[in-house]
Amino acid sequence: MFQVVQTGPKRIPSILKKRKKKVGLPPGTPIFIGRIKTEEIKITVLDYDEIKCEEKEVKTVEECLPFKARPTITWINIDGLHDITTLEKFGEHFNLHPLLLEDILNTDQRPKIDDYENHLYVVLKMLNYNEERKSVIIEQVSLILGENYVLSFQERPEDVFDPIRERIKGKKGKIRSYGADHLFYALIDVIVDNYFLILEKLSERIEFLEEEVVKAPGTETLQIIHSLKTNIIFIRKAVWPLRELISRLERGGSVLIQAETSKYIRDVYDHTIQVIDTVETLRDIVSGMLDIYLSSISNKMNEVMKVLTIIATIVIPMTVVSGIYGMNFQLMPELAWPIGYPMALSLMLLVAIIMLSYFWKKGWL
Amino acid sequence: MFQVVQTGPKRIPSILKKRKKKVGLPPGTPIFIGRIKTEEIKITVLDYDEIKCEEKEVKTVEECLPFKARPTITWINIDGLHDITTLEKFGEHFNLHPLLLEDILNTDQRPKIDDYENHLYVVLKMLNYNEERKSVIIEQVSLILGENYVLSFQERPEDVFDPIRERIKGKKGKIRSYGADHLFYALIDVIVDNYFLILEKLSERIEFLEEEVVKAPGTETLQIIHSLKTNIIFIRKAVWPLRELISRLERGGSVLIQAETSKYIRDVYDHTIQVIDTVETLRDIVSGMLDIYLSSISNKMNEVMKVLTIIATIVIPMTVVSGIYGMNFQLMPELAWPIGYPMALSLMLLVAIIMLSYFWKKGWL
Amino acid sequence: MFQVVQTGPKRIPSILKKRKKKVGLPPGTPIFIGRIKTEEIKITVLDYDEIKCEEKEVKTVEECLPFKARPTITWINIDGLHDITTLEKFGEHFNLHPLLLEDILNTDQRPKIDDYENHLYVVLKMLNYNEERKSVIIEQVSLILGENYVLSFQERPEDVFDPIRERIKGKKGKIRSYGADHLFYALIDVIVDNYFLILEKLSERIEFLEEEVVKAPGTETLQIIHSLKTNIIFIRKAVWPLRELISRLERGGSVLIQAETSKYIRDVYDHTIQVIDTVETLRDIVSGMLDIYLSSISNKMNEVMKVLTIIATIVIPMTVVSGIYGMNFQLMPELAWPIGYPMALSLMLLVAIIMLSYFWKKGWL
Amino acid sequence: MFQVVQTGPKRIPSILKKRKKKVGLPPGTPIFIGRIKTEEIKITVLDYDEIKCEEKEVKTVEECLPFKARPTITWINIDGLHDITTLEKFGEHFNLHPLLLEDILNTDQRPKIDDYENHLYVVLKMLNYNEERKSVIIEQVSLILGENYVLSFQERPEDVFDPIRERIKGKKGKIRSYGADHLFYALIDVIVDNYFLILEKLSERIEFLEEEVVKAPGTETLQIIHSLKTNIIFIRKAVWPLRELISRLERGGSVLIQAETSKYIRDVYDHTIQVIDTVETLRDIVSGMLDIYLSSISNKMNEVMKVLTIIATIVIPMTVVSGIYGMNFQLMPELAWPIGYPMALSLMLLVAIIMLSYFWKKGWL
Amino acid sequence: MFQVVQTGPKRIPSILKKRKKKVGLPPGTPIFIGRIKTEEIKITVLDYDEIKCEEKEVKTVEECLPFKARPTITWINIDGLHDITTLEKFGEHFNLHPLLLEDILNTDQRPKIDDYENHLYVVLKMLNYNEERKSVIIEQVSLILGENYVLSFQERPEDVFDPIRERIKGKKGKIRSYGADHLFYALIDVIVDNYFLILEKLSERIEFLEEEVVKAPGTETLQIIHSLKTNIIFIRKAVWPLRELISRLERGGSVLIQAETSKYIRDVYDHTIQVIDTVETLRDIVSGMLDIYLSSISNKMNEVMKVLTIIATIVIPMTVVSGIYGMNFQLMPELAWPIGYPMALSLMLLVAIIMLSYFWKKGWL
Repeated sequence: MFQVVQTGPKRIPSILKKRKKKVGLPPGTPIFIGRIKTEEIKITVLDYDEIKCEEKEVKTVEECLPFKARPTITWINIDGLHDITTLEKFGEHFNLHPLLLEDILNTDQRPKIDDYENHLYVVLKMLNYNEERKSVIIEQVSLILGENYVLSFQERPEDVFDPIRERIKGKKGKIRSYGADHLFYALIDVIVDNYFLILEKLSERIEFLEEEVVKAPGTETLQIIHSLKTNIIFIRKAVWPLRELISRLERGGSVLIQAETSKYIRDVYDHTIQVIDTVETLRDIVSGMLDIYLSSISNKMNEVMKVLTIIATIVIPMTVVSGIYGMNFQLMPELAWPIGYPMALSLMLLVAIIMLSYFWKKGWL
Repeated sequence: MFQVVQTGPKRIPSILKKRKKKVGLPPGTPIFIGRIKTEEIKITVLDYDEIKCEEKEVKTVEECLPFKARPTITWINIDGLHDITTLEKFGEHFNLHPLLLEDILNTDQRPKIDDYENHLYVVLKMLNYNEERKSVIIEQVSLILGENYVLSFQERPEDVFDPIRERIKGKKGKIRSYGADHLFYALIDVIVDNYFLILEKLSERIEFLEEEVVKAPGTETLQIIHSLKTNIIFIRKAVWPLRELISRLERGGSVLIQAETSKYIRDVYDHTIQVIDTVETLRDIVSGMLDIYLSSISNKMNEVMKVLTIIATIVIPMTVVSGIYGMNFQLMPELAWPIGYPMALSLMLLVAIIMLSYFWKKGWL
Repeated sequence: MFQVVQTGPKRIPSILKKRKKKVGLPPGTPIFIGRIKTEEIKITVLDYDEIKCEEKEVKTVEECLPFKARPTITWINIDGLHDITTLEKFGEHFNLHPLLLEDILNTDQRPKIDDYENHLYVVLKMLNYNEERKSVIIEQVSLILGENYVLSFQERPEDVFDPIRERIKGKKGKIRSYGADHLFYALIDVIVDNYFLILEKLSERIEFLEEEVVKAPGTETLQIIHSLKTNIIFIRKAVWPLRELISRLERGGSVLIQAETSKYIRDVYDHTIQVIDTVETLRDIVSGMLDIYLSSISNKMNEVMKVLTIIATIVIPMTVVSGIYGMNFQLMPELAWPIGYPMALSLMLLVAIIMLSYFWKKGWL
Repeated sequence: MFQVVQTGPKRIPSILKKRKKKVGLPPGTPIFIGRIKTEEIKITVLDYDEIKCEEKEVKTVEECLPFKARPTITWINIDGLHDITTLEKFGEHFNLHPLLLEDILNTDQRPKIDDYENHLYVVLKMLNYNEERKSVIIEQVSLILGENYVLSFQERPEDVFDPIRERIKGKKGKIRSYGADHLFYALIDVIVDNYFLILEKLSERIEFLEEEVVKAPGTETLQIIHSLKTNIIFIRKAVWPLRELISRLERGGSVLIQAETSKYIRDVYDHTIQVIDTVETLRDIVSGMLDIYLSSISNKMNEVMKVLTIIATIVIPMTVVSGIYGMNFQLMPELAWPIGYPMALSLMLLVAIIMLSYFWKKGWL
Repeated sequence: MFQVVQTGPKRIPSILKKRKKKVGLPPGTPIFIGRIKTEEIKITVLDYDEIKCEEKEVKTVEECLPFKARPTITWINIDGLHDITTLEKFGEHFNLHPLLLEDILNTDQRPKIDDYENHLYVVLKMLNYNEERKSVIIEQVSLILGENYVLSFQERPEDVFDPIRERIKGKKGKIRSYGADHLFYALIDVIVDNYFLILEKLSERIEFLEEEVVKAPGTETLQIIHSLKTNIIFIRKAVWPLRELISRLERGGSVLIQAETSKYIRDVYDHTIQVIDTVETLRDIVSGMLDIYLSSISNKMNEVMKVLTIIATIVIPMTVVSGIYGMNFQLMPELAWPIGYPMALSLMLLVAIIMLSYFWKKGWL
């Protein structure tokens, strides 16, 4: 798991850190890169065809096998990746390549698609917004499409797939009448649609900042801009590879994807382009904001300087005049004049006014 | 102030916000993303061939069908997208794919072209300049070209298609003698031509800013630059995809576009390139402006600093001298000198002049 | 000041403004976009073959037709585009497509090449430097190559084609022995060669600025940099499309261009690349200048600040000491000391020297 | 401090310097570009097949030849490149092209792949992090794949290949059952995996900086940012060419790489893309940091200015009032008033409060 | 000739200036663009085969012809381009196209390759570092490869080709046993190798700057950065086109280049990529330096501001207190107190300490 916003200092290493233990190991050694969670792995099987639909939470991989054997469509969702033995069993029973297993566990994978002979493997990034911590959480989802089954691996239980589950159970839409490839598409679609929600959250924050930046720029503003910028850099990293991934999925070639589903994947492709477009737009706006911030601060300083200059201009003649007549020379004729005092006061005022109006004309104030 | 969508803070979310209710729904579920308007949907039919021309405002989709059945060219314009039932009826009678219907309603679509078997679907962005609110409004227009009909869907009634309507009714140009594909072209053409008007408005504002930025940069200048920048980012987003869209339309392949019309579409393509060119030029100029702004402010501050330094330089010797002779030591021989006072005054002047001329030589002032 | 089109504030709109009257008109309606000039259209015919050469200024299009009919090469140059009737007559007699006529008149066209069946149409931008107004003027030139004739349309009389005219009349070079395609090439070549002159003017200004920016940056420097930047943006816009244009001309395919001429067009292509290269180089240098400007100003401010700090450091101990001994307490023993006064003066000096040397060591001054 | 090659000022020349002696020499003259080390060259032979495995440190090239002659897989690792005679002997016995030998010695080579007829030559950069000196060290590794042997040339002994050695000797994984191409792959893989460790080190430093930049930016912060930036520039230079290199290795064509190994190379390719992605991400973050730094400093200065203004505002009325009543005019009626003194004090306070509250309202403070 | 560093103001025009006299001239008119030198043209012939080798300095073109006629390999080097008649004679005797002659003389040519039927023409830029003037000098070299001869044209005598000459005369390497194409390659190779020397000089300067920029940024630093930046812009311009040029040479097609030589040209290609890589790296570093410079200066100013604030904070309470007790009110009870004076002094100190510690806590100092 990876938190973009909340724990600043842990942002970047968390993508990379656990790698250390992997260097030099034989390829295909499944090692889990990520925080080890104490919760148990949760395996949910959803088995359906147009007529019936069965949902079951199982404990072991072996319990899944009868479902796979049936001609119905079987969706097995695995929450939690830390139990390597379970995963290796999946690998064995579903005939998954060791490199594929390694990729599932290596949760800092770049989104990609791999076409193995009898199944299609897709790695995606799931973005979630943690309202409480005001943070974007990036998680890895691995999807495997086999002949009549779909496997989905998540780092931890998330409810993003719930609408699909509901549609299947509630027979909403035609999903029950399509094949496993349509389920595969639907899972990708819901992940991509979720991106829009995250982008909305970000754009809300940006919108909130826009006025602040020009009117009352402060240190926190700077921190939020920096955090937004880093967020968007990470979201870009998660989103850009999707373009090629889904394009390859559409142009397909895989026998597992039917022609009808391709049309829907084309639709996901359009959404992906739109997500990328929006991310780039947000990036441009946030980049611009930093320039605005800098200009705004310079502007404020300029105003403060003007105030200082005005004050100096007013005060200085007064100080000079009062300084002169504060000297203790025995022979200072003005000191004896009856109009000496009011004259000095008037002089102060006069010089201040002359200076102020001169600077005003020059446009310096 | 100058804004893309009327209210600044809502600028960005308004592109994205309503998506929330869509996530997880079956594909092809038509849901209207956009502000729901209270006005009624307005359907206008314009039916013409070289000989006669009939215009009629209808209430229901069924009333359009007789026109479609005739060999004449039928243009059905729909203003307002919030009545989903009406749209679904169109989908039914005109045999539109559910994904297409979804795209019409999803008003934050990226401009694109989809070639369905018996019709061609194009999504475009219409830019309008609201003179009163000084804002650019981005609206989505969907155009569908069928064998002898064109459907156009707009979010709300706009008069941008009026010139076409006039040309058809007034038999101006040869539009009446061409097919539905020419009408399709003409609608795209008028939308693209409209972009030039918006760019003119923007360039007028830019031109107005150019002098201000160098001579009198202030907080509002900053706000206008930021707003212009954001505007151009959004216009780019609307305009760039057009390039590929119209290029694909020209290179065609669609049997619905005749060779003669292709020549005209080539012309629209040239305009599109020119629009993109101009948008990029404006973007470069506005980007440069922010740099100029920052430099200009630094420059102003520099001048203010110089004034402060000049003042300090003049005043300081005076203060020092008057301070010294303001001390109350019993044994200060100068105080008793008759020329003490004028000497002190001369000293003040002298030191100030020496310092000023020294700094002047050094180029610090 | 140095500007693209004579009056700064009108720089950008002038490219776009007159479009307004075009929106919604039937395609191919020739409308002149540009400043309407009061002068008359000037038509010059130059008819030549290897043996003889005839130059004539004519009043009407019809007078040109006999020249066109002859087997000799006929170059018809038209200065001024505001008389639409004359242009329409050309269209008629030379069999020009309405869209082509529209393009000739639409003087904010992007440089492009169009291959009509019996003629080749090229739009170029001519850059001229108005020495008096210190401004670059961008004008559109349309060139049409027919079987044995070349038509050239200019917005207003310019002398850029004069050297060609001289070469033809004076039989310099082999131009008289080549076909119309060579004349066509020669006209393009002279326009591209002219770009070098403009770039020289710009680089002279840049060279002049380079020292100023580092040594004495001021408000005007900023204005000139901004103006140079905008100039280069516009020149880029005029020059970049040339690359593809001339490349297409060279790779040809057009039967109107002979193999021998292709070799020369390759040469123009090399020049175009060089022009683009130089424009990009100038752009990089001018962009860098703004950064230098900003740094330079910050630098100057820093120096001013140091002067202020030095002054403050010297003056402050003096003020404090003189302030203390200026107090009127009855019991201030130092006041009665005979060495009180010199001691106070020495104290002032001492503290100032200590502070100055301390700050010096710290590297603050 | 954190540097690419141990001593900052020598960072860049060290890549280039020794070239001087090469200019104008005949091609294929092997000259060692790099620091000449005093240690001896160390040659290690590891000879294995599925059954047995022999490791031996040899002194001369000739001792290696018997291993090469056997059908087993032979890995010869050479640490140290300064002994040109040894290298030339390798060239002779292993039939290496003079240009290849030159490339091995020229240690500022760009990563590349060369396909000679009977062997494959790959140049890579090895990144090492020197914990003690806090520096990244870039070293060149040359790998040669022959029919049943692999040669690896390193500038100096490093332990990066140790895990591979262990796997072979310990029979971990299936490496012993594969051919020389798999060993070749494994060496490349371990080098690429090592990049992740370096990127982790960098991201740890970046993470550490992120807070510092906003909260307490100082001169060292600037130095570290600059050093990080330069580091990343050099790492990019080492990493980017890998993409094409490994892609070419995968798409192969070389008969020396078996189909099975290609699958694993595909895996290395994915890692390479991920490394590049991460480097770009770090680059974006570090670039952004400098902007944040600048903004942060401007921000701090703004706050300091405000403090100065507040102080000035409070003090100035006091100075003026006390200045006025410090004048020595004989006729200053207030001086004789009993409430003169408290009145003056109150006046001071009052004016200061009025000014402060005025500026506060204006938002200047 | 073109001086990058030394004469700043003449930097840019010198690339372009002399063009003026060319505009409008017939194509293929050889006109020398460059400074006309008074020295004579120097023609050196080096004629060799595997057995013998003859070097001779000749006066006229005709003297070269016997060498060309022999089956041996003839290298004719021409230093100085100002004598157009000589060049035209070369054109005549060696059958060179007029456009080629024009290109040789036009010394601001972009590096390019032209394949004429019986010879290959290459234009390159030679970079030389003038140690005395601390300037990079860009000169144009034209190389022509014919069947058994190579012509090289340089603007002025340089010793860059001397190592080749030595190798031929001294029979070092195998150059004598190869054909004219190998000589052609060797000349290109030595020019490209020379680039590394220039890049070293630049990187030495950069390295020298790196510390200065962070620690003691001044006006000269700025000038050097600007000059380095401009240098690199010009070197890029000279170097980038090489990539395509040499790639085309390698992929060849020309019958004049033998297969064996292609392998060597591949090596030059690798060097070119490396040169480009290094230039880009230097560019990135220099660009980053300007940002560092700006940040560094802001930083310095910040520190100066803090010093000012500290001073102000200490001094101000002293001034205020001494001002108050310097007033001349008749009724100021404190003045009569015996502890008045020490009390006032203590008050001054106390307030200063309180303010300082308060600001310290706030982190303003």
